[in-house]
Formats: sequence, structure tokens, C-alpha cells
Amino acid sequence: MRARVLVRPKQGILDPQGQAVQRALPALGFEGVGDVRIGRLIELEVADPAQLPAMCERLLVNPLIEDYEIVEAAGAPASPLNGGAIGG
Amino acid sequence: MRARVLVRPKQGILDPQGQAVQRALPALGFEGVGDVRIGRLIELEVADPAQLPAMCERLLVNPLIEDYEIVEAAGAPASPLNGGAIGG
Repeated sequence: MRARVLVRPKQGILDPQGQAVQRALPALGFEGVGDVRIGRLIELEVADPAQLPAMCERLLVNPLIEDYEIVEAAGAPASPLNGGAIGG
Repeated sequence: MRARVLVRPKQGILDPQGQAVQRALPALGFEGVGDVRIGRLIELEVADPAQLPAMCERLLVNPLIEDYEIVEAAGAPASPLNGGAIGG
């Protein structure tokens, strides 16, 4: 199964990369942008999807400062797949 | 609108971070893992979603080595704070 793990900084955790983007966009002429958060997108083939939360906790995610969400990536790549577990 | 941009290394582009994760997982006891690719997850409030492709091309994505996918993040379980005021 192809799985997708969305990793994002926890609410309240400073996200300097997101701040930089948020300041840069108006300078390029893009107005009305706010609350930019930048995290990681991890996509992988796994034989046993039940192992994914353990993989996240042990390697992929820093649970002190990051939340993660596991979604199946099996569907069409352009469709948002929102039915995942929320970890952290 | 809260939007989500998924950025991933293009097919055929070297992904050293993904390779490192792919080698580390079996060492932690997770078998059956393959084709790990690591990219970026960008979430932001935008007043005009039609500007998103231009934002990607001009700042968020390096189109030489990265592909991107824009999805609506409304209804995503991990972003409960939708529809807030948009700040600059």
C-alpha cells in the first residue's frame, strides 16, 4: 500500500519557514495570504500499514513539536484524502 | 480558504532524505518499506485560490526538481481553525 504521512508543526510551535513564506508572498504581489505553516510530506510503500503510527513515533516525526496525519495515497493523486488518523 | 500544497521531488530526481529514511526503517525493525519520498507540506490561508499556481511557480516550488499538487484543506481533521481572519 502506498501511504502518505503529513507532518506539520504543532499549534503554537514557531514555524520560521512558514513566516518567511508569509512575508515573501506579499512582496511578490500576492495579497490575502495568512497562517502559512510548512511541514513535511512523506510518501512510502508499506507492506503493513498498521506499522505506520509506530514508524512515525520512532523515526518520521518529532512528537514534541510536530503532529502527523496518515492518509492512504492509493487514490487519484489530485484528490484530497482526509480520512486519516491524527497523531501527536 | 485554507489550501494545502503538496510538494514532492520529481520522479527520477534524487531524494537523499527519502533514501536515509528507507535505510533507517529496517534497522528499527520495520520491514516491507520501499520507495520513500520526502517532500514539503505547505498549508496557508488564501483569499484568492486562483493565485495558488502562480505562488507555487514563483516561490513555493522549484519546478525544475519538484512537482506540486494543490488541494483544499477545508474539512481536513487536523486543521480545525478554518475561516479565521486573514492577516498579512
